[in-house]
Amino acid sequence: MIEARYRQVTSFGPASVGNLTVGFDLLGMCLGEPGDEVRISLCEEPTHIQSILGDHGRLPMAITENTAGIAVMSYLKHLNIGQNISLHLTKKMPLGSGMGSSGASAVAAITAVNHLFGSPLSREELCPFVLEAEGAISGSVHGDNVIPALLGGIVLITGYHPLQFKKLPVPASLYYGLVHPHLEIKTSESRKILPTEISLQTAIRQMGLLAGFIAALYESDFPSMKLYLQDEIAEPVRKTLMPYLDQSRLIAESYDAIHCGISGSGPSLFSLWDDEEAATKGCIALQKYLLRWGTASEYYTGLVNQEGATILSALKI
Amino acid sequence: MIEARYRQVTSFGPASVGNLTVGFDLLGMCLGEPGDEVRISLCEEPTHIQSILGDHGRLPMAITENTAGIAVMSYLKHLNIGQNISLHLTKKMPLGSGMGSSGASAVAAITAVNHLFGSPLSREELCPFVLEAEGAISGSVHGDNVIPALLGGIVLITGYHPLQFKKLPVPASLYYGLVHPHLEIKTSESRKILPTEISLQTAIRQMGLLAGFIAALYESDFPSMKLYLQDEIAEPVRKTLMPYLDQSRLIAESYDAIHCGISGSGPSLFSLWDDEEAATKGCIALQKYLLRWGTASEYYTGLVNQEGATILSALKI
Repeated sequence: MIEARYRQVTSFGPASVGNLTVGFDLLGMCLGEPGDEVRISLCEEPTHIQSILGDHGRLPMAITENTAGIAVMSYLKHLNIGQNISLHLTKKMPLGSGMGSSGASAVAAITAVNHLFGSPLSREELCPFVLEAEGAISGSVHGDNVIPALLGGIVLITGYHPLQFKKLPVPASLYYGLVHPHLEIKTSESRKILPTEISLQTAIRQMGLLAGFIAALYESDFPSMKLYLQDEIAEPVRKTLMPYLDQSRLIAESYDAIHCGISGSGPSLFSLWDDEEAATKGCIALQKYLLRWGTASEYYTGLVNQEGATILSALKI
Repeated sequence: MIEARYRQVTSFGPASVGNLTVGFDLLGMCLGEPGDEVRISLCEEPTHIQSILGDHGRLPMAITENTAGIAVMSYLKHLNIGQNISLHLTKKMPLGSGMGSSGASAVAAITAVNHLFGSPLSREELCPFVLEAEGAISGSVHGDNVIPALLGGIVLITGYHPLQFKKLPVPASLYYGLVHPHLEIKTSESRKILPTEISLQTAIRQMGLLAGFIAALYESDFPSMKLYLQDEIAEPVRKTLMPYLDQSRLIAESYDAIHCGISGSGPSLFSLWDDEEAATKGCIALQKYLLRWGTASEYYTGLVNQEGATILSALKI
C-alpha cells in the first residue's frame, strides 16, 4: 500500500529541444532553463487543478484535459493510490514555442507526485505516464521532449512499441543556446505539412547522418557533430514557416556555433557551442537579427542539463 | 614522381557483410575468410588482366570491364603513373553470394598496387577507386562491402557526396558466422524489388533502430545489439527471395546467436555471436536445415576481421 510521505512537493520541469535537427522524433536535449514549476499538495477533494499561472488563461483547468493532470491521474490509478492531489502550475515558458512547453508541466507534475509518494517508481518508469498525457492532448505520441525533460541530457528514443530510450553521452563542454522569437507555431500545424512518404534515398541519407551523429557524441567529436547535424526530412518543409532559419544559421556559424537549427517544431532556434561566451554572443547576435527581421525574442544559454526534472522543495507530513 | 618499389605483390581481399540488417547501404563488416587473392606484377605490355582463376570463366578479362582492373587503372591514372601492371586474380568465393565478391578482388588489387608503388596513399584514400570501380560495374555506388573489406572492422558510411565513413568500435568477443547456400541472387535483381519510397513512420523507426545499434556497439552491449538488429526496409521484400530466412533465424537464436540475417542482398546468411563454439555449432545447424530445405552450403566463422585487406607477399625490385 503506497502512502504519501510528504504533504506538499514543488518541482521543476525543464524546457527541451526535440529532434535536434538530425533525429526527427527520436532525439531530444534537456535545457537548464526555462522551465515550468508545479506545486502539488494532498487534499480532501478529488484530484484537481487548483490554479495555472503564466498561461494567460489558455490552458484547460479540467484535470482530464491538461497534460499535467492526465499524467498525475494516470499515475495514481496505476499505483492504485486513493489519496487526492491538488495541482498548482506555474508556466514559465510560452506555449507553441518549440521548447517542449506542453510536456514540461507534465514532467514537473509526475516528478512531484512520485516524490510525494516516496518515489515508488524510477525516473525511467515515469516516462509512459507523461507520454500518455502528451498523446491524449496532441493526438500523436512522441517522446523527444518529455523523456529528455524527465531524465536530463541527450536522449535517443529507439522505439515506441515498446517504448525504448537511451541517455547518450554528452561532451562535458557542450553548451546550448536557445532563442525564442515571439511568434507561435503550433506543433499540430507544423506536423500537418510533413510528408507521409519519403524516398528511400532520402531515408538512407538521413539514417547515415543520425548514425554519424551518435558516433560523434560517443567520441566528443565536435567537427563531426557539426557535419552530421542536418535534416532532409522536416527542415525542408518546416523552414517555409521559419524564413529566418538560413540566415540565423549563417550568423550562428559566424560566431563559431557547432550548429543552429529548429527547436522541435519551431519557432525557437536552438544552437550548440563548445564555449559559453561564444554561445552568449551568438545568441545576442541572433536576437539582433530577429529584431531587424521584425520580431522580439529572448534567449537562454547553459550547459546541457544532465539532471532533468528536479524537486525544489518538499514538506513532510 | 611515384615509382615501383616491388616487382610483384600478392594480396588478400576479404569477404564482407553489407547492410548488417539494420543499416541498409550504410553498414558493413569485414570477414576473416573467405576472400580473393590478387597477384600483380610490373610488365612491359599495357596494364591488363593476365588470368582469372576460380570464376568458372564468368568474369570479364577486359581491364575496363572488371572491377579490379578498373580500380587499378583509375589509381594509375590518378597518380600519373606510367608503369604497367599485369593482374592475376584468384577468386576464392562465389559470385552473387552476398559476401561482397565483386568488391573483394578490387579491394585486393588496389591494396596490392598501392603497396607496389610504396604506399603513396592511405587505406582511406584508396576507397574512392574501389567505389568507382563498383559503381561502373553495378550501376550504383554503395560502399558497405568494399570499405569494410579495405579497412577491416565494422564500418558506417555516413554519406556518399562527399564520401564519408567511420570505423566503429567492435566488441573484442564478437564472432561472425556466415553460411553460404549454393544458390545465386544477383545484387541487381535484389535491388530491383526494393521500394523507391517508404513511409515517414517506417523511416523514423529504422533510424531509431540504427541509432540504437551504433550506441550498443560503443557500449559493447550485446542484448541491445540483439534488440536493434532489425530491418523494415529491405528485409520484408528480400525475404521473399530467401524463404529459409525466418526459420534460419529461429535456429540460430536457439543456439544463442545475437542475430541472424541476410548478408548483403543474399542468399548468404550472416550471424553474430559472443562465443566461437556457439557460432560453429549454430552454423552447422543452419547447414543441416538448409540441406533439408534442399540446398548444400558451406560456412565460415571467426572474430570480426579488424585488419581488412592484407599483403601476403612482395618481391623487391
